[in-house]
Order: sequence, then structure tokens, then C-alpha cells
Amino acid sequence: MKKIYVIGLGPGAYEELTIRADRALQDAEVVVGYTVYVDLVKAYYPDKEFLTTTMTREVDRCRMAFEQASQGKKVAMVCSGDAGVYGMAGLMYELSAEFPEVELDILPGITAALGGSAVLGAVLGHDFAVISLSDLLTPWEIIAERVKDAGKGDFCICFYNPSSKKRHDYLQKACDILLQYKKPETICGCVRNIAREGEECQILTLAKLRNTQVDMFTTVFIGNSQTKVINGKIVTPRGYQI
Amino acid sequence: MKKIYVIGLGPGAYEELTIRADRALQDAEVVVGYTVYVDLVKAYYPDKEFLTTTMTREVDRCRMAFEQASQGKKVAMVCSGDAGVYGMAGLMYELSAEFPEVELDILPGITAALGGSAVLGAVLGHDFAVISLSDLLTPWEIIAERVKDAGKGDFCICFYNPSSKKRHDYLQKACDILLQYKKPETICGCVRNIAREGEECQILTLAKLRNTQVDMFTTVFIGNSQTKVINGKIVTPRGYQI
Ligand SMILES: C[S@@+](CC[C@H](N)C(=O)[O-])C[C@H]1O[C@@H](n2cnc3c(N)ncnc32)[C@H](O)[C@@H]1O
Ligand SMILES: C[S@@+](CC[C@H](N)C(=O)[O-])C[C@H]1O[C@@H](n2cnc3c(N)ncnc32)[C@H](O)[C@@H]1O
Repeated sequence: MKKIYVIGLGPGAYEELTIRADRALQDAEVVVGYTVYVDLVKAYYPDKEFLTTTMTREVDRCRMAFEQASQGKKVAMVCSGDAGVYGMAGLMYELSAEFPEVELDILPGITAALGGSAVLGAVLGHDFAVISLSDLLTPWEIIAERVKDAGKGDFCICFYNPSSKKRHDYLQKACDILLQYKKPETICGCVRNIAREGEECQILTLAKLRNTQVDMFTTVFIGNSQTKVINGKIVTPRGYQI
Repeated sequence: MKKIYVIGLGPGAYEELTIRADRALQDAEVVVGYTVYVDLVKAYYPDKEFLTTTMTREVDRCRMAFEQASQGKKVAMVCSGDAGVYGMAGLMYELSAEFPEVELDILPGITAALGGSAVLGAVLGHDFAVISLSDLLTPWEIIAERVKDAGKGDFCICFYNPSSKKRHDYLQKACDILLQYKKPETICGCVRNIAREGEECQILTLAKLRNTQVDMFTTVFIGNSQTKVINGKIVTPRGYQI
């Protein structure tokens, strides 16, 4: 059986990979991925063939991986963070009907929500919701409804794709929805370039987040009603008596 | 500055650790954790001192770690999955006020939601909510409200702590809430012992999940309205045109 590893690289570079992901990359002959992610790990796997495409060519990139595998090569398809979370694993399965001779092996990775939560402290220490603010593939009405429901349920919330050139006010719109259910003082955090060069984070209130501009290399966190700041770190308690 | 690494081990054993977590464990002198998790990695770090406590002694276990660090030892506090998600990172920060001389370094890990999603295929490929069904530290009313809101928002949902001896019908109750918002044919999955010996998974409908008994070593997944089964794998599409 021909096989493709679909690998989550984690938020940053080499050290955030799992040992299993590292071994799979060593085993592969061809590594396929988005240019920016491939560049993060390239130096650690010098003897591989690398095939990259730009950002929006996801379907092409996946087909490329299947074609390489069909030709008998051991292929690793890499994604940032987790392979499934707004990643390529689902699309690879959708395309797999066209390539019945190829088997997929999904290797999970540290998603931005967990990498970023650890940078800020322990934001996602209780129930949480992960929502992408990108309306490229999902209508804004559905996104807005999810933001509302997550706010209503007092979840900790993590926003992926919080901004882009065309959508500079989506985070603001999402915060306005949340402000109907969460207090303006709710503790929030932003982490940019998690585990990458130039990693930076800030802690702020929901009221302030509403008026903050972030970019697409940022993951945004909104606490629940119990979330607090302890010594410069954001903590959502599980409820232990101490 | 004295330091404790708070390390998420991932769902299984050694291979699911990140390279950074592995290096931190190598660097540590004392490893503190719940017996079951420590046993999963013990063999890989033969020269360490291991301190363990049973399941419900979380606060004692954390204090133990701080006391060791205060005595000048390099300490690793280990959790299964991610260090933050229903893990020890938050509690460690809460206790840190008592030990101002000790700094914490949180190392994220593959949480059961992502490990299990990869076993089943790509369940968490779009917006998702993670909810613990344990009412040991959270009142059932809050849990039930969150289940309702996640159902209403058409999130993919992941249940941790889906059952215990005292709470054998909580998964059933949660499914009954979800059945008010999701179709009985909604695709669901259960994964037991993710990345451990005896790993097993099943795919079933929400109607069937309602009448299924699971144990505390299981993570339960509920798809959104778009989730489907492709060739024996659960896939939640992101929405690409293929
Ligand atoms: C298309 S999603 C990919 C998510 C990825 N598969 C994961 O599991 O983390 C891209 C979004 O993830 C978040 N993200 C991914 N890597 C990040 C990093 N290193 N630092 C900050 N945010 C990151 C940002 O919100 C970004 O807009
Ligand atoms: C107290 S929580 C700990 C979660 C852990 N910190 C994480 O991030 O995965 C325990 C629950 O996590 C889930 N879980 C953890 N490890 C698992 C595994 N290897 N297989 C299946 N479920 C697991 C189960 O639902 C279990 O009841």
C-alpha cells in the first residue's frame, strides 16, 4: 500500500514537532507543503525533495502529494500546527477517493490554540471553543452565530485567522458580539508568531481587544468569567480548592 | 531563578512527546506526576527520581513539585495530553504565589481531542468546542448550558471525562441535549486509549451514541452538520471546492 504522512508541524519550528512526526519526516523522500511552513523545517531534513506551492493553492498542493505517492514515493504532507485543525487532513481524505491506492497516516501536532495558551500561561484550562474568523470558506453569518453561542456558554474562546487585509474589522465585530454576553473586563490575550522568531504576546481586556488591530500571524484568546491574571500570566482555573 | 517545567506528554507514550518536552525531561532531575502517566514514560528516563501521587491528589502533587524546586532541584511536572487542558498548568500558577522564587515553563502537548481526531480521520477540521462532562469541579447546570450552546452553534464537539462510576448517564444526558439541535444521524466517534496499548475506536450516529456506554479512558466526538464518513474515516470538511 502506498502511503502519505499528513503531519502537523506544531506552531513553530523543529522543537515543537512530536518525536513521531520527526521520524516520519526522516522516513519520507518528498515533503510537500506551503512554502512558509516548509522553510521552517527544511534545514533539519537536508536530503529530502521539497515541493511547495503558495498559500491559496491547497487543492493543487494535496493533488501534488497524491501524485508523488502514486509514483511510488514516500510522501510527507506538512501543515503548521495540527494537521486537522483548519489544516490539510480533511481535504486529503476528500481527495483520496481519486487515489484509492494511497493510504493516509495523520500525525497530530500542537495547534496554535495550545501553543499560544502556554505562552500566555494557562488560558485554555477549562472548556473552550476554537473559531476561525475567516469567511473565505464559511459565511460570516455562521461564524457570527458560533461567536454568539460560545459567548453565551461562557467558553474560553480562541480565534484563528483573526484578520486579513479584506477583513480588518472582523475581530472588532466578533468582540462586539461577545460584549453582549461577556463583561468588558474579561481577560483576553493575543499571541503573535508562536514559537517562531519574533514571538510576542499581550494581555488586555475584551473592551480593549475590540479596538486592537491584529494580523494573520496572531491567535486571539478570550477568557471565561473565571479567567484571571496571576503574576503576568493568564490562568483559567479548573476549580480546585487550594 | 528556580524553574519547573510543566509538561504535556501527549495522549500516549514517548513518541507523542514534542522534541522540546523530551529535552526538558532529559534536563530534569525529578519528575512529578500521577502514577499512570509517569509509568508511560519512565523507561525512557532511567536516571531520574520519580515522585507520584494517586488520581485525586492534584493539589498535593503540585505542592510536591514546588517543594522539590525550592530545594534547588530541576523539576518536571508531567500531565497527559496538553499541560493546560484540564491539566496542571493552571493550578501550578495558582499555587505559585506561595513559591515566588520558582518560575514555571509550560510545554504544550497533543491533547486527547487532537490525538483522537487523527485516529478517527479529521473530525476537528473546522470550528470545535471541547467540554468536560465531569461535575467534580463544575456544576452540571453549567456543563449542560455549554453542551446546549455548542449544539446550537453547530460546532464539532469533543467530550472529555465522558463517564465515571458515579456519572454513568452523563453522556446520555449530553446527547439528549444535543439531539434538540443536531440530527440523530450526525456522525460521532469514540476513541479509547489514544496512542496507548489497546487503542480502539468506533464510528456511530448521535442516536446510537446516546445508548452507548464509554469509560473514562475514552474521548467522544460529535460532528457538525457537514461531517461525513469517507472510506471508514470521519471528516469535517473546511469547504474547499474539489
Ligand atoms: C489556516 S490556520 C492553520 C492552523 C493550524 N493548522 C494549527 O493547527 O495551528 C492559520 C491561523 O492559525 C493561527 N496560527 C498558526 N500558527 C501560528 C503561530 N505560530 N503563531 C500565531 N498564530 C498561529 C493564526 O491565527 C493563523 O491565522
Ligand atoms: C483530566 S482529562 C486530562 C486531559 C489531558 N490534559 C489532555 O489534554 O488530553 C482526562 C480525560 O482526557 C481524555 N483522555 C486523555 N488521554 C486520553 C487517551 N490516551 N485516550 C482517550 N482519552 C484520553 C479522556 O476523556 C479522559 O477522561
